[in-house]
Amino acid sequence: MQAISEAELNRLEDLRKQVNQALNLMIEKELGNGAGEVAELAGEMLLSGGKRLRPLLAIIAYEVAGGKNIEEIMNLALSFEFIHTATLVHDDINDAAKQRRGITTLHERAGQAKAIIAGDWLFVHGFGLGGLYTKSIIDLVTNCCANIAISEFMQLDHVLNLSTSPEDYLQIVRGKTAGPFAAGCEAAAIVAGASQSDAEALGRFGMELGIAFQLMDDLLDLQGDERMGKPRGADVIEGKMTLPLIHALTLLHGEKRKKLSAILQQFTDKNWDELMGLLETSDSLGYSQLLVRTHLERATLELQRFPDSLSKSLLMRIVEHVHQRHM
Amino acid sequence: MQAISEAELNRLEDLRKQVNQALNLMIEKELGNGAGEVAELAGEMLLSGGKRLRPLLAIIAYEVAGGKNIEEIMNLALSFEFIHTATLVHDDINDAAKQRRGITTLHERAGQAKAIIAGDWLFVHGFGLGGLYTKSIIDLVTNCCANIAISEFMQLDHVLNLSTSPEDYLQIVRGKTAGPFAAGCEAAAIVAGASQSDAEALGRFGMELGIAFQLMDDLLDLQGDERMGKPRGADVIEGKMTLPLIHALTLLHGEKRKKLSAILQQFTDKNWDELMGLLETSDSLGYSQLLVRTHLERATLELQRFPDSLSKSLLMRIVEHVHQRHM
Repeated sequence: MQAISEAELNRLEDLRKQVNQALNLMIEKELGNGAGEVAELAGEMLLSGGKRLRPLLAIIAYEVAGGKNIEEIMNLALSFEFIHTATLVHDDINDAAKQRRGITTLHERAGQAKAIIAGDWLFVHGFGLGGLYTKSIIDLVTNCCANIAISEFMQLDHVLNLSTSPEDYLQIVRGKTAGPFAAGCEAAAIVAGASQSDAEALGRFGMELGIAFQLMDDLLDLQGDERMGKPRGADVIEGKMTLPLIHALTLLHGEKRKKLSAILQQFTDKNWDELMGLLETSDSLGYSQLLVRTHLERATLELQRFPDSLSKSLLMRIVEHVHQRHM
Repeated sequence: MQAISEAELNRLEDLRKQVNQALNLMIEKELGNGAGEVAELAGEMLLSGGKRLRPLLAIIAYEVAGGKNIEEIMNLALSFEFIHTATLVHDDINDAAKQRRGITTLHERAGQAKAIIAGDWLFVHGFGLGGLYTKSIIDLVTNCCANIAISEFMQLDHVLNLSTSPEDYLQIVRGKTAGPFAAGCEAAAIVAGASQSDAEALGRFGMELGIAFQLMDDLLDLQGDERMGKPRGADVIEGKMTLPLIHALTLLHGEKRKKLSAILQQFTDKNWDELMGLLETSDSLGYSQLLVRTHLERATLELQRFPDSLSKSLLMRIVEHVHQRHM
């Protein structure tokens, strides 16, 4: 792996700053227009230190595809961050989560009713921003958002379903996480005026990166990484069937599989070491890590067709980052 | 009041049929695309016998403003019905409502998590349809939806707040109900290529009609009208401060006001007759009815500038309908 250069680091930080400023400005404008508490609550969650991966990807993909005027893509980039935050707010209600992005979740602070509405408000503004673009882009945004909902239904139906297959899991991941990455990159390329095949390549790049990202996210949940801003094993507590668990359930037999099933069905932090021991027996974390690498390699391959540039190297850095330490 | 002519009745029914067919087609298309249960559940609520007042208003306002090609306005008309249904699904969760449009509410059938997501799915498609129009229309839709959220926050903050003023109430009504009526009519006029002043007049028509509609809705809640598809006094049970209650709290004094406060704070159907007696003492239903008439008169005045036509007379019929029996 190549160390990130100073030029790359500066550019990434500069872009993140621009995104944060634009998000701040929007919330301030809505507060100025009298949006009051809904803008305060939603704004607090929106502005509370997200990684801005989705808007950054859109902006950088736009540049890789030949776009020169960042103002042209900024609204679309913000749109994806609004929509992403909206889904987080609603997901947190459904997961009864207490922490997100290191702060107390919205429904814990303001009650469920306001959290549902604040999520809607974020969706509305996300679509308001996305609606400023052409039909093909609006279709991409609409389809990816509809697929988020479809995948969340699937995910709910698979809660504690111990016969969930890797295919089920990947379908959920494609819809819920990777689809928006793909739509963001493809839409950004269209805004840049890229050819259809270039736009689709960036869409595939986003899809592969997004799958790797979610696999990594699920791994970090099992590694108790503090940067997640939520307690370790949260997915297991919620009964979410992530790939390491599915893999272990497939490979383990007899007493060990029984033990794993029992732990998953009534998981508490006390079972942590036992769960880790079982996942180690089947090398399920290792398997997921291998799969992360595969998807990241596929993502990288999609970039080959584009000429070298600072923006392209930034996308490569994001690929590496997902692998190394979860951006 | 003029009786509705056969031509008017036929045209209204024909339009409603076209809207219903288009809604059906969209849900079928999404089901065909693999949207599965989320489209089934959301579709069931969407298709379960709404009055289609919002899409009808958009279509007819478009025609009054000079529009000739109904296909040009249909997506916007459907957009408002999707968004409206999305807000109903989310409101019903927050109100813990059991019945809507005469059927069991979505969260009662499928659980809260799926109801939140199904509402989001309806929003997404509403915006997908609205996003097909120009920036000025997208801004109207976005602002009206953001205002729905802002007003719902206000409404939540005023639950059981016995010092809620008529101004507070009207601000909530403008944002939550009348705003979308206004946005629908104004946006429809813009699609029809109307002048700015004509579009704004139709916007004001929608606003006045919408205020009257919500006042009537609140009155019907207190009259136990079965056409509402929910039990009488539902608003009172939820602690919603509607105008008749606010009016009675303002006019009544001493023991009677105390009694009314006590009833409102712990309302059950057993207190029904007593509540009605108190509202009669202050003639609070009569006051609301007068206000309905005022707003409908104002709505009618906004139509004067448009040449006579079947479409204009249909808008007049809708005005009368809101007054007579709640469309």
